[in-house]
Amino acid sequence: MSLTESEWFTEIWKDQTAFSVRYSKKLFDRVSEFQRIEIFQTEGMGRVLILGGCFMVTEKDSFIYHEMLVHPAMSVLSDARRVLVIGGGDGGAVTEIVKYPEVESVTLCEIDPMVVQSCLDYFPEISAGLSDSRAQVVNDDGAAYVARFEDEFDLVLVDSTDPVGPGAALFERTFYDAIKRSLRKGGVAVLQTESPLLMEKEFVKAVTDLREVFGRPAVRPYLATVPSYPGGLWSFTFCSRDVDPVGQAPSDPRLARGDLQYYTPAVRRAAFALPAFVERLIE
Amino acid sequence: MSLTESEWFTEIWKDQTAFSVRYSKKLFDRVSEFQRIEIFQTEGMGRVLILGGCFMVTEKDSFIYHEMLVHPAMSVLSDARRVLVIGGGDGGAVTEIVKYPEVESVTLCEIDPMVVQSCLDYFPEISAGLSDSRAQVVNDDGAAYVARFEDEFDLVLVDSTDPVGPGAALFERTFYDAIKRSLRKGGVAVLQTESPLLMEKEFVKAVTDLREVFGRPAVRPYLATVPSYPGGLWSFTFCSRDVDPVGQAPSDPRLARGDLQYYTPAVRRAAFALPAFVERLIE
Repeated sequence: MSLTESEWFTEIWKDQTAFSVRYSKKLFDRVSEFQRIEIFQTEGMGRVLILGGCFMVTEKDSFIYHEMLVHPAMSVLSDARRVLVIGGGDGGAVTEIVKYPEVESVTLCEIDPMVVQSCLDYFPEISAGLSDSRAQVVNDDGAAYVARFEDEFDLVLVDSTDPVGPGAALFERTFYDAIKRSLRKGGVAVLQTESPLLMEKEFVKAVTDLREVFGRPAVRPYLATVPSYPGGLWSFTFCSRDVDPVGQAPSDPRLARGDLQYYTPAVRRAAFALPAFVERLIE
Repeated sequence: MSLTESEWFTEIWKDQTAFSVRYSKKLFDRVSEFQRIEIFQTEGMGRVLILGGCFMVTEKDSFIYHEMLVHPAMSVLSDARRVLVIGGGDGGAVTEIVKYPEVESVTLCEIDPMVVQSCLDYFPEISAGLSDSRAQVVNDDGAAYVARFEDEFDLVLVDSTDPVGPGAALFERTFYDAIKRSLRKGGVAVLQTESPLLMEKEFVKAVTDLREVFGRPAVRPYLATVPSYPGGLWSFTFCSRDVDPVGQAPSDPRLARGDLQYYTPAVRRAAFALPAFVERLIE
């Protein structure tokens, strides 16, 4: 069966596999200084944000990505006051972060202001945290921005696109060095590090480079399933010299309010149990 | 971008989402008594088996499904001698089961002999276990077949298609009753129970019906990621009144040989940590 171009949006992965959604309406389609931005209304995945032809956010499954980027780290940090999110212009990560009352400031450094504005317009629930008084948006290159800070942040999150186009600088070793310098003692960095199943080279390179920067035992990849991303099995990497992401978390009770859809303390610990082939990739 | 019908195979899920693979060659395309069977050679996913238009097996990711169907149960059963697999004509589950020396017999009850033969021909590694001397293939209706036994099997695995067409009978409450009767004391049943993300009604119905048959505490859903299945996040349900799937497993050391790609004892325990939305679906 073939899909008609007029009704389906398709992301093709390396001319090998493709994921498609049927849409009822194209809501937004503009080319910013950095990339093409498209937003579709779909029945199967709700509203969908496409950057540079790739699925970034869907109302159906992005809660998995945003919760698993933010809560494993936030729930084990006992007092995270200053947080930096690099990329993540949809605001979903910030929305999760402002659920913690101890946070004093969260800065979103997104290079493309049109991504932020289009998400404020079309994904009001996902971007809701951007209107919190503790949140500020900076439109700058994330790698250059974080390099200005030393001993500043309790948590740095890297919510990047794939390592092509505007996201490429966020997979460089010099960027990882800058993140490490920007962290306060006891701080944590969490980066999205691609799919270990379909993008194993990118995953292995990220973990290897992060180990060189943070030290091998400080670097802990973990997984969640994000159906709209190629490969579905998605990795994040938790980097900290001081904080154990798998132990009992002082902060977990704060999240017992039932407003999360994916994260639980047990899910956090489970996410670090890597399948055998992933363990072997990074042995 | 649109996909050409001549080079891509596409599975469309409820006219809402679609997953596609580009193929270099169509290796097999026949209509059996039960369904259309297609096999493609692809670069992205290796060889791919399609039953009734749905992805069943890919060389790239089926190890996840087969290992997670079989090993969580086999590794916690200390002496599983007699095993029944219902469905699973690709032989992948049997191939995992015959890795255990204590198994005396494993019966594959697959309704469609053309599925078995085409997998023997085109997926020799996945179906390799079918040539083990302890394995036998029965071509029969799985629901009718299992109803003939009482107090017979240590493990019954249900490796079904979706609950339409030939797979529909394998989602009936009477079938679950028959499985329970066929088990020996201390026996375990594991069933594939669809995606809790895209097929939540089917998942909830299966878990609810299994709880009525086996008793609520005996029924434990668990998850793995199978990228080529709709929704990616796939569920299995472990049913046993006697065996705890999350505790320490006597048999785990047998699997330390390094021939598994996904399963580890830690992955088994982690698979039972359900995301919050899945917990709520089956509260």
